[in-house]
Amino acid sequence: MQWTKVLGLGLGAAALLGLGIILGHFAIPKKANSPAPQDLDLEILETVMGQLDANRIRENLRELSREPHLASSPRDEDLVQLLLQRWKDPESGLDSAGASTYEVLLSFPSQEQPNVVDIVGPTGGIIHSCHRTEENVTGEQGGPDVVQPYAAYAPSGTPQAVNAAKHGVAGVLVYTDPADINDGLSSPDETFPNSWYLPPSGVERGSYYEYFGDPLTPYLPAVPSSFRVDLANVSGFPPIPTQPIGFQDARDLLCNLNGTLAPATWQGALGCHYRLGPGFRPDGDFPADSQVNVSVYNRLELRNSSNVLGIIRGAVEPDRYVLYGNHRDSWVHGAVDPSSGTAVLLELSRVLGTLLKKGTWRPRRSIVFASWGAEEFGLIGSTEFTEEFFNKLQERTVAYINVDISVFANATLRVQGTPPVQTVVFSATKEIRSPGPGDLSIYDNWIRYFNRSSPVYGLVPSLGSLGAGSDYAPFIHFLGISSMDIAYTYDRSKTSARIYPTYHTAFDTFDYVDKFLDPGFSSHQAVARTAGSVILRLSDSFFLPLKVSDYSETLRSFLQAAQQDLGALLEQHSISLGPLVNAVEKFEAEAAALGQRISTLQKGSPDPLQVRMLNDQLMLLERTFLNPRAFPEERYYSHVLWAPRTGSVVTFPGLSNACSRARDTASGSEAWAEVQRQLSIVVTALEGAAATLRPVADL
Amino acid sequence: MQWTKVLGLGLGAAALLGLGIILGHFAIPKKANSPAPQDLDLEILETVMGQLDANRIRENLRELSREPHLASSPRDEDLVQLLLQRWKDPESGLDSAGASTYEVLLSFPSQEQPNVVDIVGPTGGIIHSCHRTEENVTGEQGGPDVVQPYAAYAPSGTPQAVNAAKHGVAGVLVYTDPADINDGLSSPDETFPNSWYLPPSGVERGSYYEYFGDPLTPYLPAVPSSFRVDLANVSGFPPIPTQPIGFQDARDLLCNLNGTLAPATWQGALGCHYRLGPGFRPDGDFPADSQVNVSVYNRLELRNSSNVLGIIRGAVEPDRYVLYGNHRDSWVHGAVDPSSGTAVLLELSRVLGTLLKKGTWRPRRSIVFASWGAEEFGLIGSTEFTEEFFNKLQERTVAYINVDISVFANATLRVQGTPPVQTVVFSATKEIRSPGPGDLSIYDNWIRYFNRSSPVYGLVPSLGSLGAGSDYAPFIHFLGISSMDIAYTYDRSKTSARIYPTYHTAFDTFDYVDKFLDPGFSSHQAVARTAGSVILRLSDSFFLPLKVSDYSETLRSFLQAAQQDLGALLEQHSISLGPLVNAVEKFEAEAAALGQRISTLQKGSPDPLQVRMLNDQLMLLERTFLNPRAFPEERYYSHVLWAPRTGSVVTFPGLSNACSRARDTASGSEAWAEVQRQLSIVVTALEGAAATLRPVADL
Repeated sequence: MQWTKVLGLGLGAAALLGLGIILGHFAIPKKANSPAPQDLDLEILETVMGQLDANRIRENLRELSREPHLASSPRDEDLVQLLLQRWKDPESGLDSAGASTYEVLLSFPSQEQPNVVDIVGPTGGIIHSCHRTEENVTGEQGGPDVVQPYAAYAPSGTPQAVNAAKHGVAGVLVYTDPADINDGLSSPDETFPNSWYLPPSGVERGSYYEYFGDPLTPYLPAVPSSFRVDLANVSGFPPIPTQPIGFQDARDLLCNLNGTLAPATWQGALGCHYRLGPGFRPDGDFPADSQVNVSVYNRLELRNSSNVLGIIRGAVEPDRYVLYGNHRDSWVHGAVDPSSGTAVLLELSRVLGTLLKKGTWRPRRSIVFASWGAEEFGLIGSTEFTEEFFNKLQERTVAYINVDISVFANATLRVQGTPPVQTVVFSATKEIRSPGPGDLSIYDNWIRYFNRSSPVYGLVPSLGSLGAGSDYAPFIHFLGISSMDIAYTYDRSKTSARIYPTYHTAFDTFDYVDKFLDPGFSSHQAVARTAGSVILRLSDSFFLPLKVSDYSETLRSFLQAAQQDLGALLEQHSISLGPLVNAVEKFEAEAAALGQRISTLQKGSPDPLQVRMLNDQLMLLERTFLNPRAFPEERYYSHVLWAPRTGSVVTFPGLSNACSRARDTASGSEAWAEVQRQLSIVVTALEGAAATLRPVADL
Repeated sequence: MQWTKVLGLGLGAAALLGLGIILGHFAIPKKANSPAPQDLDLEILETVMGQLDANRIRENLRELSREPHLASSPRDEDLVQLLLQRWKDPESGLDSAGASTYEVLLSFPSQEQPNVVDIVGPTGGIIHSCHRTEENVTGEQGGPDVVQPYAAYAPSGTPQAVNAAKHGVAGVLVYTDPADINDGLSSPDETFPNSWYLPPSGVERGSYYEYFGDPLTPYLPAVPSSFRVDLANVSGFPPIPTQPIGFQDARDLLCNLNGTLAPATWQGALGCHYRLGPGFRPDGDFPADSQVNVSVYNRLELRNSSNVLGIIRGAVEPDRYVLYGNHRDSWVHGAVDPSSGTAVLLELSRVLGTLLKKGTWRPRRSIVFASWGAEEFGLIGSTEFTEEFFNKLQERTVAYINVDISVFANATLRVQGTPPVQTVVFSATKEIRSPGPGDLSIYDNWIRYFNRSSPVYGLVPSLGSLGAGSDYAPFIHFLGISSMDIAYTYDRSKTSARIYPTYHTAFDTFDYVDKFLDPGFSSHQAVARTAGSVILRLSDSFFLPLKVSDYSETLRSFLQAAQQDLGALLEQHSISLGPLVNAVEKFEAEAAALGQRISTLQKGSPDPLQVRMLNDQLMLLERTFLNPRAFPEERYYSHVLWAPRTGSVVTFPGLSNACSRARDTASGSEAWAEVQRQLSIVVTALEGAAATLRPVADL
């Protein structure tokens, strides 16, 4: 070989090696240093959907509803242990689980001295007594743990009258009319266990407390050391003795009443003309001058009630929480309310826990499972939790998902929620098959029952708005966290029942669900899949699937209602809606622009920190609608879009209510000043919301 | 060439290229994909420190204080334009700048009908008049833009009396005694322009409004459309006519008073014995039955007042804001108050802006410069800003740095702030040379004047706590943002002046600063460097230099004060401090553990997202001490550790105040219930704070 050649080869080799190094360094992306960011994994999603098992939900429900589990009862405590055991299971449990206990004020009937409703004859003798318990129809209504029907927090007392004290009502009897709950049916052979309808002896229990949360510790967690309001200063309890009765007892009272006929809208299906009293009919079952004696012996008691929390730690953003919860306590067996939800909760935690323990999956963000205590008494467990961890939850929670009663009936999905959750629910339900005949998705089935015409999307399923009917209330109203409540529900063409007929009675049992509400548990499974898909999408998606621009439709419709129904009135009082128009338009523009920026970013390969910043804007948007000083008379309600609306115009609640008050009373300038103040509160909130959606370095 | 050779060479070449590719890909770290995270750059820091120029600060001050610039005056508007021009300068400006205007209620004396204080003889004739203006000592006290001395928001009226109406004070005269402001000196040759002391005609103006923010729009931004409280319903204005006068006029009145001798602590340096009245001395300058007539003609006016904001966009975390501000409006020329701060602000923005425009530097986080309007009337501009952007600022602001009066005197640094900012101020000041003789750092000089013995650090400079004396108030008290106020100040062994003597008078001029307060402007430069270093550290450090564990010392000292000074009393009323002890201990433990985790992480090469999560815990800690329902009677104050304390025990203010009220009045159980409630509010806040410091996936 010649030197020149060797040199030539050597130089060539060096050049090739160098070229290779250069190519290797610059031309091949380095996987190890910049892995694709963890995102929603459709395979995992499909696995979860496939593993959610209807029969396991059924078995969960059987166990959960085996015994009555009134808040703070021994069986309620047993279920705390059951949840802990499931969530600490080495093969299907979560990363951690624990119970936290609050000392809260509950209300119970006296066991020694039952509440009674009697008809007392002219000579003072009892001539008729209402039933003190429900009829033991299936063997489950007679146990010692079935709490006597009562109105929780109604005060004790023994008023006696027959609708006579026109201007000084001394006591209240409450019943559910077969027209409202049973589609008019009332005979034993037409009701449970022969159908899903309420038996004549069924009595709906409930809390009669006006607010929510522990009555003694408003805005403070009910830990033992917390300050407690003196009982004499508690507001929100009913002022007079109150007792619920079944419709068979109501018939005995109501169908014997004398006096003028009640208005048509007051008539029901008890098979007689309802009259207003006073006194009994002379030709009826009781002497005309008989009286009704109501004796209520309810007692307030400080009791320990627990929440159970279970956590799956997020792999990438553990400080972002997807919260999913339901209450645990029931009035009696509570198969539907709340165990149908808890049965789903347990199946979801099992499936996710199993993937977790196998090492197959860990979500991007943390998932928190919650089993709340004492919801039936006024959302107590969830409210105390939000009071205890107010700041932390407000700073970190992506969304709260509530599944309380998971199945009211088998016809369709029903979702209540704030606008930013609409899209994720749509995405989830489009991919899940609907139970029942046909090959529809849950979405396609849903849209047949609840729909609306959206100016943006065309015909879409319609979400309901969130009131305060379950544990989502403190999350949305007090903390401003985007929330939703998911269930399967009725075909309204088939029943007009206000709610499933055995609601809050001793007939809400496993067999009731198994035979009438959801035989085969396919609706339970549909709810589990919907909730599961929503939870996975919220916890695993790189970009948070919260579409804040969907608030624009709500704002626009509130604005239009204000303009159409209040505009002229406001103008008379020199109040302009102009600033509100501007604020809504600004929100719409900023939300749309943010949507554009997200789309653009999604096409590239954005930095995780960049996406985190955008996600924070999405997550925190709901918080910007909070104003803790907006409604000083409303406890916990701070959300200026979803606070209770007493005014008839479906618009911003503060505005609607203030207008209604100013118009209804012959009120002076102060009432109109309050209208102006409420308008400014909304405008400030909307302007603030728009400001948080702007590019973050624009002030 | 033979085929085998060619093949051999070809294979060899391929192998070399391949080896090169492999080496290039695996052996050389890929800079572009995983750059070291942007962190504080000590070279940039040194450059900034070096470029902050004393003479430029001096020139800024000359321009800023050239004319009186009372809030909303034409000159105030000129300065808005000056700021905008500087911040939009193509070579030394910021990324963006803009002014935002609020319509706010200010108070001015009438130009047509000046406020007067006269002595009226027995026959009704005026026998003596107080000066209506300050003496034109330097040619700057006589211009048309020098506002007549007045008490802003004091109502109009013309009361007449001589301290006679014992139980019905009709008007108030206010003056500053030479004992309090002039170290006892009062003759013209001992005062400005011959010294820094206040001339005899000097009058301190000020706002007499009790709260802060625009009086007509509490909790709402004072944009034109916002709801305004009816004037008749505004609370917080002084109830009776009030007028400030100079001490030469005060001498005429006070030294001629009759009656018993005033208490020793009321005596001053006017050269006579102060008496309490009623009436004048028979042997004095005025007939004994003369009267003092006070005529106040102040007018409330809605005026436009602007904030100016300038932004440097963060390179990595633009949604994290380091806010740095000062007010712009003065009472007269306001060379010290506030222009000494604004002169520093402009120099800092110039130096940082220049680096930015050169492309040398861009901070990790955004820096926001603010020039607030109408501070002198009650922190109005800053308060309206926090009302307008409440949520956005609360979610994103790392800290607020205030430099109002930057130099009171030349002796030492003085910092007020919340505990988490202590460390960053210490770090900054240890690296900056102190002005004046010797080779001390600002830190080493500071510790000689203000120090305390810390159980953790030993002897350290002591930070003061933040009251409501400048624009930091809404940031710390209303938004819960870690805040600080930075200035250079007195050697207290050399003067006992309550504040620099020409405060809020027409003698607070450029020459006053240039000759007496800070000749050479080295103290201004020291403040600029301190603020600059703090801003750079907060905006550029990868790990936020907010040391939350420094709150432990405060909590521990508040707890000890509660135990020592209130413990026995509380025990008598069956109120236990046990839960507070537990909460403080829990906070201490969690803060220490978080500190440990940060240390560990700092030793590795943590992921930016991981650090962001930790930083969020640090940034948001201060927020967890807010409770908007804690002090319903205190406007804006929500911080349970720093709300105003009226009780004498230096502990948690709500507890201190409630105890003080319960003890002072012969109060019943309700006052003690309020003590218990305040205790629970603090315990809940501390437990919540500890919870936010825990590892984020632990609930």
